[in-house]
Amino acid sequence: MGASGQGGSSGSWSSGPKTGTSFEWDFVTPGLPDGAFEDAPGFSPTPLELRVMLLAHLRPRRDSVVWDVGGGTGALALEIARLMPSGTVHTLERDPEAIELLEKNRRRFAIGNLHIHAGQAPDDLHLLPARPDRVLLEVGRPLPTVLNAVWSALQPGGRLVISTANLEGLVDATNTLGQLEALDLQVVQATVHRMQRRGSQARLAAAEPLFLIAAERHG
Amino acid sequence: MGASGQGGSSGSWSSGPKTGTSFEWDFVTPGLPDGAFEDAPGFSPTPLELRVMLLAHLRPRRDSVVWDVGGGTGALALEIARLMPSGTVHTLERDPEAIELLEKNRRRFAIGNLHIHAGQAPDDLHLLPARPDRVLLEVGRPLPTVLNAVWSALQPGGRLVISTANLEGLVDATNTLGQLEALDLQVVQATVHRMQRRGSQARLAAAEPLFLIAAERHG
Amino acid sequence: MGASGQGGSSGSWSSGPKTGTSFEWDFVTPGLPDGAFEDAPGFSPTPLELRVMLLAHLRPRRDSVVWDVGGGTGALALEIARLMPSGTVHTLERDPEAIELLEKNRRRFAIGNLHIHAGQAPDDLHLLPARPDRVLLEVGRPLPTVLNAVWSALQPGGRLVISTANLEGLVDATNTLGQLEALDLQVVQATVHRMQRRGSQARLAAAEPLFLIAAERHG
Amino acid sequence: MGASGQGGSSGSWSSGPKTGTSFEWDFVTPGLPDGAFEDAPGFSPTPLELRVMLLAHLRPRRDSVVWDVGGGTGALALEIARLMPSGTVHTLERDPEAIELLEKNRRRFAIGNLHIHAGQAPDDLHLLPARPDRVLLEVGRPLPTVLNAVWSALQPGGRLVISTANLEGLVDATNTLGQLEALDLQVVQATVHRMQRRGSQARLAAAEPLFLIAAERHG
Repeated sequence: MGASGQGGSSGSWSSGPKTGTSFEWDFVTPGLPDGAFEDAPGFSPTPLELRVMLLAHLRPRRDSVVWDVGGGTGALALEIARLMPSGTVHTLERDPEAIELLEKNRRRFAIGNLHIHAGQAPDDLHLLPARPDRVLLEVGRPLPTVLNAVWSALQPGGRLVISTANLEGLVDATNTLGQLEALDLQVVQATVHRMQRRGSQARLAAAEPLFLIAAERHG
Repeated sequence: MGASGQGGSSGSWSSGPKTGTSFEWDFVTPGLPDGAFEDAPGFSPTPLELRVMLLAHLRPRRDSVVWDVGGGTGALALEIARLMPSGTVHTLERDPEAIELLEKNRRRFAIGNLHIHAGQAPDDLHLLPARPDRVLLEVGRPLPTVLNAVWSALQPGGRLVISTANLEGLVDATNTLGQLEALDLQVVQATVHRMQRRGSQARLAAAEPLFLIAAERHG
Repeated sequence: MGASGQGGSSGSWSSGPKTGTSFEWDFVTPGLPDGAFEDAPGFSPTPLELRVMLLAHLRPRRDSVVWDVGGGTGALALEIARLMPSGTVHTLERDPEAIELLEKNRRRFAIGNLHIHAGQAPDDLHLLPARPDRVLLEVGRPLPTVLNAVWSALQPGGRLVISTANLEGLVDATNTLGQLEALDLQVVQATVHRMQRRGSQARLAAAEPLFLIAAERHG
Repeated sequence: MGASGQGGSSGSWSSGPKTGTSFEWDFVTPGLPDGAFEDAPGFSPTPLELRVMLLAHLRPRRDSVVWDVGGGTGALALEIARLMPSGTVHTLERDPEAIELLEKNRRRFAIGNLHIHAGQAPDDLHLLPARPDRVLLEVGRPLPTVLNAVWSALQPGGRLVISTANLEGLVDATNTLGQLEALDLQVVQATVHRMQRRGSQARLAAAEPLFLIAAERHG
């Protein structure tokens, strides 16, 4: 088998990988290769396969207003912004290093409809425009206080998607959403093993499973 | 936890689920809910989460010509066709019952750029338009003869994505693609567990893992 | 590949599979083949691979007193009893059909040190001998009341192993055990895919993941 | 949740963890805690949960002669030797550092019936006693030459268990065993996620899946 870990020919950069200012990507599907994003130690983007799963459950429209709470390097925020020519994404992120990465990635992909706000949930959610159509919550542990604040802000008929690796957070979130009478509540655990070559050996790389929670607010 | 198996409020049908002729779905992301497709015993659509993963690796453009070989109920073909307003999808399928389902689903989603061909690979590949930009191979076991035929038809710079649950097929395919000097060869094993309620119990449902193989032809 | 689903030559029965009264199994490791147990619709034994994992975390001694609460067909109880020549296993089970299966299996394997009690936890735990060295809890959802009752009965230095597929139960149990100051608390999610042949196709069969929780009481 | 990564109170060492010469472990089940074994960078023992699965499929008897080919730190060899008071285990290992670890671990557990041979398969298999009852093959990629040599040495009625993470090796091995008319051929893919605490976060740790292949020689 000749499988390489995470092949490279994906998309094209005007002046070499990760140094140019523009990135050409004219495909109609989400799913930028992981290597397309600027990263830093401790900040790897959500893997492509999990990213497109989260986006599929979020279901933004062409003109949606999307909150991205705790977006790290911004891989998801950038994908959404790229797909919504007349919509906007607002990211709330507290880590200065993550914000710097977000800025770099926004420039690389020349994304104009992504707005970055420094702050944290729930205290600084007021910095974001009221009544989002979609909320993406990417937090270690989704707390009930954050969930409640986000849910009451959400446009009726809007959708919330949570990405977490934390088991207690998973249970808290599904309980809270049940109490909030969320519609179409779904929970998915996804594990993605990529084949990697080490010398002549092709093996499936270790992978941390991720939980996705999706819900829709009464219309 | 209030998680339901596979919630329902997704998209809207003009005259009730699965009986109307039009289906409204105006989201910019792929990922129609599994329940949106007509199915039949033995023909369940590829689950949403795996479908969007396959699409992400396929990377069609707005005007791509896509082959879908062995598409079953057509869930993937329909998603691709919907995303490519000026592209076309050609499905080759040998099973008459699958073709009937494909027709029903094409009507339900009012998709005009999906063409259905009765036949099987490699013998009937000549029925499809030459030089596709993208090929999706959804077969139990991807045989070297089919792979070779498909690869030599593929437009230079084009992409091939294989979906299989068959282990020998996986190894055959990666070997064959290695010999064909495919670029950006990637292999991913994905497992998706959905939380399901049985009475008061929320458990993770059993899931059959799927292998995805993606490769790009020299430009 | 010539992999069969769950091969058959394992162990030997004196008068044909599942009908004889004695079963010969003289191996030093636990792990009777799944097909060795009597089952019934709705009562399949815990798969071999998961069974030996649970046993490994339970760590019975030659002379341990073991409680098996909610043991279904008794696959685990029988394995433990077989390994402990001078120990005893006490099963508490409320379902009459499960108890009948347990009886059949106890006879088949000619196990003398397995005692079956009809009843349910926590109300009927008093039927079992006080101060067990080991407790195995096989319940849909491990409730805090049951956990507390079982923990206070457990011999100091004793071990508790819980098998559950229920996510809320998992979180409840780890929280309760944390409050009880359990030692060596471990949580493992195990997924086991078996290769199965369907005609000429070898694929990995769907599997429901199981959670194991193990803990030790202060000595 | 109070789950610790891999708790500690398991077993007891006479003079502190990993420094004493004797290790007390009087449980009737296999499954020594991972931390009980001496390791070194690049040599971690097969995790407990996977180890007991491999042992269950191997099915040694009290007096079996077992070959362990490519045993690394010897975690499996030591478990088997401990369970077979009148049997013997013969390990063939080519890496001097692994052999040193094996020696250390053999001393720690005071195991007298484990014999260590320096060499590699298939060339040095003649160093091991002829006609083993059981063979455990722990190799990156099980080659047909090694498999054939091992199979023809195996006692009729004997069992072979292969542990591999290599996909081509998996397919090669099942094909070869099919041609050799192996009985009770089984293939299992197991993934074990352990809950780990990082600060206040309990998440499931990344895990590399392992393939187990088991087969029995005609009696």
